[in-house]
Amino acid sequence: MMLPQLQKQFQRIDKSKLFQSFVIAVIVVSALTVGAHTYSLPPTVEIVLNWMDIGITAFFLIELVIRFIASKGIKDFFSKGWNIFDTLIVLGSLYPAAGSSMLIARLLRIFRVLRLVSMVPELRLLVNALLKAIPQMGYIALLMFVIFYIYAAIGSMMFAHINPVLWGDVSISMLTLFRIATFEDWTDVMYETMLVYKLSWIYYLTFIFLTAFVFLNMMVGAILEVMSQEHKNARDELADNDSLPATQGQVNALQAQIADLKSLLKEKEY
Amino acid sequence: MMLPQLQKQFQRIDKSKLFQSFVIAVIVVSALTVGAHTYSLPPTVEIVLNWMDIGITAFFLIELVIRFIASKGIKDFFSKGWNIFDTLIVLGSLYPAAGSSMLIARLLRIFRVLRLVSMVPELRLLVNALLKAIPQMGYIALLMFVIFYIYAAIGSMMFAHINPVLWGDVSISMLTLFRIATFEDWTDVMYETMLVYKLSWIYYLTFIFLTAFVFLNMMVGAILEVMSQEHKNARDELADNDSLPATQGQVNALQAQIADLKSLLKEKEY
Amino acid sequence: MMLPQLQKQFQRIDKSKLFQSFVIAVIVVSALTVGAHTYSLPPTVEIVLNWMDIGITAFFLIELVIRFIASKGIKDFFSKGWNIFDTLIVLGSLYPAAGSSMLIARLLRIFRVLRLVSMVPELRLLVNALLKAIPQMGYIALLMFVIFYIYAAIGSMMFAHINPVLWGDVSISMLTLFRIATFEDWTDVMYETMLVYKLSWIYYLTFIFLTAFVFLNMMVGAILEVMSQEHKNARDELADNDSLPATQGQVNALQAQIADLKSLLKEKEY
Amino acid sequence: MMLPQLQKQFQRIDKSKLFQSFVIAVIVVSALTVGAHTYSLPPTVEIVLNWMDIGITAFFLIELVIRFIASKGIKDFFSKGWNIFDTLIVLGSLYPAAGSSMLIARLLRIFRVLRLVSMVPELRLLVNALLKAIPQMGYIALLMFVIFYIYAAIGSMMFAHINPVLWGDVSISMLTLFRIATFEDWTDVMYETMLVYKLSWIYYLTFIFLTAFVFLNMMVGAILEVMSQEHKNARDELADNDSLPATQGQVNALQAQIADLKSLLKEKEY
Repeated sequence: MMLPQLQKQFQRIDKSKLFQSFVIAVIVVSALTVGAHTYSLPPTVEIVLNWMDIGITAFFLIELVIRFIASKGIKDFFSKGWNIFDTLIVLGSLYPAAGSSMLIARLLRIFRVLRLVSMVPELRLLVNALLKAIPQMGYIALLMFVIFYIYAAIGSMMFAHINPVLWGDVSISMLTLFRIATFEDWTDVMYETMLVYKLSWIYYLTFIFLTAFVFLNMMVGAILEVMSQEHKNARDELADNDSLPATQGQVNALQAQIADLKSLLKEKEY
Repeated sequence: MMLPQLQKQFQRIDKSKLFQSFVIAVIVVSALTVGAHTYSLPPTVEIVLNWMDIGITAFFLIELVIRFIASKGIKDFFSKGWNIFDTLIVLGSLYPAAGSSMLIARLLRIFRVLRLVSMVPELRLLVNALLKAIPQMGYIALLMFVIFYIYAAIGSMMFAHINPVLWGDVSISMLTLFRIATFEDWTDVMYETMLVYKLSWIYYLTFIFLTAFVFLNMMVGAILEVMSQEHKNARDELADNDSLPATQGQVNALQAQIADLKSLLKEKEY
Repeated sequence: MMLPQLQKQFQRIDKSKLFQSFVIAVIVVSALTVGAHTYSLPPTVEIVLNWMDIGITAFFLIELVIRFIASKGIKDFFSKGWNIFDTLIVLGSLYPAAGSSMLIARLLRIFRVLRLVSMVPELRLLVNALLKAIPQMGYIALLMFVIFYIYAAIGSMMFAHINPVLWGDVSISMLTLFRIATFEDWTDVMYETMLVYKLSWIYYLTFIFLTAFVFLNMMVGAILEVMSQEHKNARDELADNDSLPATQGQVNALQAQIADLKSLLKEKEY
Repeated sequence: MMLPQLQKQFQRIDKSKLFQSFVIAVIVVSALTVGAHTYSLPPTVEIVLNWMDIGITAFFLIELVIRFIASKGIKDFFSKGWNIFDTLIVLGSLYPAAGSSMLIARLLRIFRVLRLVSMVPELRLLVNALLKAIPQMGYIALLMFVIFYIYAAIGSMMFAHINPVLWGDVSISMLTLFRIATFEDWTDVMYETMLVYKLSWIYYLTFIFLTAFVFLNMMVGAILEVMSQEHKNARDELADNDSLPATQGQVNALQAQIADLKSLLKEKEY
């Protein structure tokens, strides 16, 4: 049969540094064409860009097929998250860029830049590391959300009649609070409500202290989490016991052994 | 008697995953109704919300009674801070939501969202950890307050006649300084006073450097504090001495023992 | 002679918890009177405050004298930095608060709040720790200054004709750059110059990246510095060698000893 | 020959603390003259400054020649990065400061302040350390750029018709996004687009979370990187094995040896 031979050849192509560099180059060109579209260009350039776009789409499709054939079957191919990621991006960019759906098509094409992340191993490693850090921050995010929700509910009850644009309802109030958490013109918001409620600075200051305090602890927690994991990894690397430091228990056993020896020798003397 | 049996059954209910999940679901629904009140709603929805509110209040009361009976008496129940916390929140939400006290009643009901923290064990752990970090920051907060107070006193003496809204008295000046510490339009404040006192930028820059410097050290201190505690915990985990690393003192004792053996053997030779 | 007895009694007073608490209370009252002066008060209260001020000044003077007599002489007293600090503050507050020098007198009285730092041992420790961190940041501050100076020189050469208020000369430009480093309305400054020099965003972005990068490394450096010092302290605590972990060299020596024993025994066999 | 003797003498000059202090003094004076030019000065002072400038330029040239002759040849001299750095700065400042090229000449003279970095050993060490930190941040910077590029492309497609000044094309949009990342009046930008697209807050909030999250991890990563390197250095310092902690493998070997001894002794008994 021809297929296994084809598969081997495709695997060779897939793994060659040259091919990978070429794919990265095409991704960069694709990113530049996406950017170029945002400038007002002469019609001839527009036509060239459109033809390039078709070429890039075709190339990405071919590259995906090569990698698919080079893999050990459908299951193996889609068992890797990055392959699913690439497939979705390539399929998304097949959306026809014409007529009323122009904008959606272009938006979908932008995400082809993300293929840089799946192609460059260092970036892939980095994103994997970032993804791993998400769950550990989940409960802190929930706690933060509870704080925001309570303050937003209080804020919209107290201040809605002062400025409905900022405090109209819970969701708008949460956006306003996020703005305050980033220190963005937060005093303007405060001074406005302080004209009506003189003591409303308590509301803002406690909120800022709470979020800053929780955030600070979040950061410290994240640093410690990663560090303790590094320590654990370092310890796991010392696979066999022989290279671990000697324990006091071991030395005590040694001392007992030598004491035995001594008594043996002494017995013989008499 | 019926009571011990009832207590056992209530303990079983209290500890069942199903019941706990249901309580969490009610808390979330309660949070949503609080949020819904901030939107302008048709009267029928308002009525439904009010009935729901009564239902939620009743449910929380029943849940508290179940947990109280399930506990080993009043002392045991109130020895846990989180139980006191829950009791206060539930009692607070009993305040009648009608007439002139509408606003207060609604504000008290908002705090029911905080019950999420006392129900979800992970959040409870997180808040406990945050509370533990407060005392270690107490003296730094005091130092920060002294810095703020001195700058506020100087500020209100020097700049009160320039802009009484920002520098009118010590308390208003402290609010203005807090604003400067968050970098919120601080140059507007500075440029205004620089028109009168050309060198007043020294006041602002030294203040920013001092607070930033103290804050930086506070963060570093907090990180180190937590880390050294982690280290101590890690060391304490190795409960018995046998798994600690062998010390040089121990090995020296070993060498002495072996030297004894040697001399014993040598003695015998002659 | 009476004097040694008086000295002993003063030492007892100086070290008594009651006296120290009373001094702290007077400092707090003194801080409150300073703050009270910034509000517009009825004349009677003003008179009371002035009498209190005289009382506080007298008390601080007496306290200083007590501590001076309790010490082992002039040299010993002024060998402690905190004593010099206290003396300067107390002497400063003797400046007469009347007539044209009113403002200066009040400013000098504000610094009495700082005596809180010298009285509370925990605050004293904290400030000592902060002072220790200054030299390690000296060279980084110098590097930062060089960056600011170069950018300020470039900025005032290029942009002085666009907005002399922000870029008039080197010193004003440095203030503007400090403002940019705190992200305070920096885009307003940038957009203004971009109208004349289209590429001036390069100036701002490189400046922000440089300062942020140096600052980040400064923070990391400070954290590491403190940590390595902690580690060193921890190691120094293990004063005698006996509690240090056993080294491979020691165990090798042991093995050699035992090998000797073995050969001794074997010799005897034949 | 005279030359080796001259070289030796120049080496002595180059290494003398006095000469180095004098060079630093000249650099500081040169920095001050650069700063002085930004003020409007009387003509006589201008003339003095110009003569000083010529003197400084000449001095730097002579100093460079001394250091060149003191070195072991061209190759050795230019093998040190800091020498190339100094040569470029000195050559740059030879550009004639007259006529139409006045501005460029002055700009080139500003960089003479940078010679402070190459002259003060502590600053040189600091900059070397900062340069070493750059590559480790390279891939994170690339990831950040990808995020910025994608958001900029989306932004300029969606919002260009709302405000072409902020979202006109990809490059302008990236500048706007950088502004949002520094929290500089970002809500003004957001509220403007929210008038047209009600849900555009999603765009801003996800962007802020992504950049803050990646930045946080970058910082943590940088801290860990430096720390692990410190640890490695500390380990490398313990050059010979003899001072490393004893391993469990070694102690096991010891136990086997002693067991041998025991059996030897027992054999002899019978």
